Amino acid sequence: MKRWNGWGDESKSMELPASAKSFLQNELGNGKPPTDVSLQEAINNVPESRLPKHHLIQTEPMERLRHAVGQSLGDWIAIRSGTIPVYPDGVAFPLNEEEVRELLQFAQKIKANIIPYGGGTSVVGHLSALPGDKPTITVDVSRMNKLLDLDEEGGLAQFQAGIRGPDLEAALQAKGFTLGHFPQSFEYSTLGGWIVTRSAGQQSLKYGRIEQLFVGGEIETPTGSLKISNLPASGAGPNLREFVLGSEGRLGIVTKATVKISSLPEKEQFYSAFFPTPEQGMAAIRQIAQDGIPLSMMRLSLPEETISQLTMAGESKILSLLDKWLKINGVNEQKCMLLYGVTGSKKSVRSSLNQAQNVIKKHKGVLVGTKPGHQWVKNRFRSPYLRESLWQQGYAVDTLETATTWKDVPRMVAAIESSLKEGLQDIDEKVFAYTHLSHIYPHGSSIYTTYLFRMGDDPAETKRRWEKLKQAASEAIVKNRGTISHQHGVGIDHKPYLENEKTKLGMQMIRSLCDTLDPENTMNNEKLI
Amino acid sequence: MKRWNGWGDESKSMELPASAKSFLQNELGNGKPPTDVSLQEAINNVPESRLPKHHLIQTEPMERLRHAVGQSLGDWIAIRSGTIPVYPDGVAFPLNEEEVRELLQFAQKIKANIIPYGGGTSVVGHLSALPGDKPTITVDVSRMNKLLDLDEEGGLAQFQAGIRGPDLEAALQAKGFTLGHFPQSFEYSTLGGWIVTRSAGQQSLKYGRIEQLFVGGEIETPTGSLKISNLPASGAGPNLREFVLGSEGRLGIVTKATVKISSLPEKEQFYSAFFPTPEQGMAAIRQIAQDGIPLSMMRLSLPEETISQLTMAGESKILSLLDKWLKINGVNEQKCMLLYGVTGSKKSVRSSLNQAQNVIKKHKGVLVGTKPGHQWVKNRFRSPYLRESLWQQGYAVDTLETATTWKDVPRMVAAIESSLKEGLQDIDEKVFAYTHLSHIYPHGSSIYTTYLFRMGDDPAETKRRWEKLKQAASEAIVKNRGTISHQHGVGIDHKPYLENEKTKLGMQMIRSLCDTLDPENTMNNEKLI
Repeated sequence: MKRWNGWGDESKSMELPASAKSFLQNELGNGKPPTDVSLQEAINNVPESRLPKHHLIQTEPMERLRHAVGQSLGDWIAIRSGTIPVYPDGVAFPLNEEEVRELLQFAQKIKANIIPYGGGTSVVGHLSALPGDKPTITVDVSRMNKLLDLDEEGGLAQFQAGIRGPDLEAALQAKGFTLGHFPQSFEYSTLGGWIVTRSAGQQSLKYGRIEQLFVGGEIETPTGSLKISNLPASGAGPNLREFVLGSEGRLGIVTKATVKISSLPEKEQFYSAFFPTPEQGMAAIRQIAQDGIPLSMMRLSLPEETISQLTMAGESKILSLLDKWLKINGVNEQKCMLLYGVTGSKKSVRSSLNQAQNVIKKHKGVLVGTKPGHQWVKNRFRSPYLRESLWQQGYAVDTLETATTWKDVPRMVAAIESSLKEGLQDIDEKVFAYTHLSHIYPHGSSIYTTYLFRMGDDPAETKRRWEKLKQAASEAIVKNRGTISHQHGVGIDHKPYLENEKTKLGMQMIRSLCDTLDPENTMNNEKLI
Repeated sequence: MKRWNGWGDESKSMELPASAKSFLQNELGNGKPPTDVSLQEAINNVPESRLPKHHLIQTEPMERLRHAVGQSLGDWIAIRSGTIPVYPDGVAFPLNEEEVRELLQFAQKIKANIIPYGGGTSVVGHLSALPGDKPTITVDVSRMNKLLDLDEEGGLAQFQAGIRGPDLEAALQAKGFTLGHFPQSFEYSTLGGWIVTRSAGQQSLKYGRIEQLFVGGEIETPTGSLKISNLPASGAGPNLREFVLGSEGRLGIVTKATVKISSLPEKEQFYSAFFPTPEQGMAAIRQIAQDGIPLSMMRLSLPEETISQLTMAGESKILSLLDKWLKINGVNEQKCMLLYGVTGSKKSVRSSLNQAQNVIKKHKGVLVGTKPGHQWVKNRFRSPYLRESLWQQGYAVDTLETATTWKDVPRMVAAIESSLKEGLQDIDEKVFAYTHLSHIYPHGSSIYTTYLFRMGDDPAETKRRWEKLKQAASEAIVKNRGTISHQHGVGIDHKPYLENEKTKLGMQMIRSLCDTLDPENTMNNEKLI
């Protein structure tokens, strides 16, 4: 069963090793675990629904609580402290596009808001009901989870868009195929959610972002059904797919999606290397991307993340041996760990690996084999579970991300990290922040920063700390010409920063699309734009 | 000097070999060369300009004639027979975005239409002035042709968007880089033109379509300047670049564009192979694309194109030897020629070639070395010159293109070809049509058909034949779920077929973007939408 007030399945957890605890105590001071409300208390907080009865809509407090928030740190603070400001008035679980249409018509008739809900994994406030007189219907598409069509020869599969990562991959892998889209939220997030938030999977280097995988589909909008035909490419005017990608539920609900699929690879392997400095690491991954060497994944941890990852791993004997070996090879305090993956036929894997390792060695990287890579694969979807363990120790953890051109990457990393590290100086609290580059493009990179801080004495203080840090980092991103989101979307949390990126005229263009399909603002009101 | 009434430089031509002439006489009957109007007659046809004086606008008949049409077959018939229906009232050659802004403001003030003009290579009617009371100002951006910024490390270059293919490549290649965008119109077409028509270059398999190369830029619109920032990727809402790509001058004029560049390859080579049947050829190129084998180009000529290409080449002795060799290897009448290119480092080229050739052999393809590939490279931008030679013999030639998913490719090829071949049966005229697949995607392919027919006794009859064939083929494309254009755009000629592809709701979305940036319909009115 999925945790009602946190990430993941109740039966799964990720223990914090003792080394990590003492590391955090050293860095941040002792944490003070907060007192969370019980499920019963949380249910008691849910007010009466304002919705008239409808055969597709449930109004029980439990469902409305379960659908009230996503997975942002602010969401956690709200649900765990019993301070969710607004709850959806009802939740519907449509089975098909006819039921979605019925719900949209009902919402328009009674002047309600619709919040589309996929896996509930949003970290930017997509799922929050808003204050005001309009009631909110959350439309959970998780029952729309069927494989509808598989064109093996043509490399295409059509799914109902509410299907989750594991179910989608199981359906494809049973037939020898994969979508290859593995965001960290993979366990819960849905195909439709990936599309409307422009999701990027961990192996986007090989398979592409969802933008490159989404071929066509159907979207139910307040104005009617929008059908996007499956075309491999087109020069006929603007591409409608691109209007839906990143639309964050503002235009309608994606009901069906056709995606590009790949044959399951003959071979897949993950390796690691250490560079003496961030500059050398960045030069290597930039060259690999610009040369088009076909790797499936690269993740370069900058020095503080490298150290914290190694410390978290907890195997101190092996680590001390590794450190000695690296020192002999000229890799010291500024070391940066690169994880990289190769995926494909045996022949292509050998060739790619060879080309990549030549570049790594050219930039003084030290190859250390497959162990850290194996470790990463094993835990690739487990880091969200860490927040639970940290919470129990009184520490809050959050992540944020951007992307920018190569020229601006070093300055951006420095600006984000210092905005966080200095963000709570006024109350004499430390913040620990570290960064990796994990989606590498020929002309730039994503930047993914994790930050930890001590929770406050009460939830309001914890929230204040979080908002302060989030604002400081978002301002640093905007100031240094990065996107306000590389893969998480805009929602409510990033909305104040979007105009800076899109310009006023660009915002008007996006607004005009919303007004065309959703003239009465029924769809995910106030999110994105 | 560029031909005033045809393609390319006056000093260049491409002779029709004797074998080709007799081939066409056999297929279509004797051609009757038309009588074209002289330059002086054409100039005398240009009416008075309706524009008030403006320091940036020229109104001389010669410039207006030169900018009156593009390169569609309809355009050729009109300019050569002296039957251009409407001329632009003036032509401007702005040097920078300030002058573009001034022109846009002037046009709005006097209620004129603006037609943006890049290299004048449109084949779908983008450049035609329209009847009505509003005067037309054609804005030729060819003087906006500077390299503005080169970020060698970051792999980005910013240009003024009026720069033509050869100038752009010269600027980059002098520094060791390439854009790698080589459409057949390369000699004249411009960066801005590529962007607003979603152009695909011959090596899109390696470098991507212009969609993958265009990173950011500036567009002058009637509502103001739209600035699109350079980001390697973003998950923050719809992507503004995608609103401009394919906008066909309806939103404004692209003045600056930043593009992704690549290092000049260490090695580039083109090879060829012959398959016994189209089915085997298609299976091979599909597998190469789906396996992600990094070739830079594939072009599979179907049987009639294979034969006509070999016949046009004219080297009968070599061809008869080739034929014998192919027969020994089981390749007969249904033979399909594949040209394929490898581009990259010496190592990667060797590995790619090896992988591709294994797939070719698996599908019974016979490798025949580099000669046809060399021939193709030599002539890659010269086929447009062939129309001139054919015209002199009384034959009209045109091309059309679409793309669709693999499942629909064979039916689509058959439908297009038969619509053309049977298109003039009512007047007992034959049409010769042949096809290649040249942009190969994992989930589908472009389809590029060339067709030839005898010109009529007068220009009106030639035009009638062309319109009939164009309509028949366009209907076949629409009926078989292809895009109305893979790389040429929509303009006026494909406009009637666009709604079928985009749907009514999709058209409303595109229209809303136009209304937002160009509320008074100043920009390239009636084109695209």
